[in-house]
Amino acid sequence: MDTSKRIPERIIFPKGEKIENEHFTGTASLHVLVPDNNTFHCPVFNVAFEPGARNNWHKHPGGQILLVTGGRGYYQEESKKAQVIREGDVVTIPPDVKHWHGAAPDSWLAHIAISTNAQWGDAEWMEPVTDEEYTTLK
Amino acid sequence: MDTSKRIPERIIFPKGEKIENEHFTGTASLHVLVPDNNTFHCPVFNVAFEPGARNNWHKHPGGQILLVTGGRGYYQEESKKAQVIREGDVVTIPPDVKHWHGAAPDSWLAHIAISTNAQWGDAEWMEPVTDEEYTTLK
Repeated sequence: MDTSKRIPERIIFPKGEKIENEHFTGTASLHVLVPDNNTFHCPVFNVAFEPGARNNWHKHPGGQILLVTGGRGYYQEESKKAQVIREGDVVTIPPDVKHWHGAAPDSWLAHIAISTNAQWGDAEWMEPVTDEEYTTLK
Repeated sequence: MDTSKRIPERIIFPKGEKIENEHFTGTASLHVLVPDNNTFHCPVFNVAFEPGARNNWHKHPGGQILLVTGGRGYYQEESKKAQVIREGDVVTIPPDVKHWHGAAPDSWLAHIAISTNAQWGDAEWMEPVTDEEYTTLK
């Protein structure tokens, strides 16, 4: 498994375009595989994080499923220890559970993100994962 | 892209165990990534077809999304031409659309299958894709 610092342009699916919003620390990219719509209620994205990049703490009213396609990173739920995630891992995030995910400091991370029950509402974004929280992860 | 006749044991996710039911022609394998449940309403499977293998015509009451992870095969909706699908392709199958998918005669196929709106009911299985239909695909 290549966990060097350069994200491949494609791990089966394209890494996409740089995310330009305030909900991320560091550089992450997004490629829409299936847009949100009223037929499937299930948008699907490919997301790639550069080393050190992560999203803010957030919740999904309908939950989310992550399929990790490459690299190495972290998934953490509020009040729980962060868990290391790698290629082939599957993460199921129940509705309204506060969490974040992102790359390790020394590796990129790529995952497919499936927004389940999307008709129940958009993600609720909260505070960043501070450098202090992030750098003290075991 | 490796489209030889041997399915890899894993394309990011394990190819899984041989499917033993009457809804397939030829040999296909299944690995459950996310089981069906009342939290996500969104079971996710990894499916691998050996060359020549395909599923019967069928419908999903809640629709389905396919993320093609390797090989080469076909997706066909009733009354439409079959389309060739390959690594990186995304197929969105609306609710109640009669269709089938599977490998090409000379290549395996692997895809992730996302059952959307699973609370709307199980797949409705129909007749096999006959050898005549399959061998005359362009």
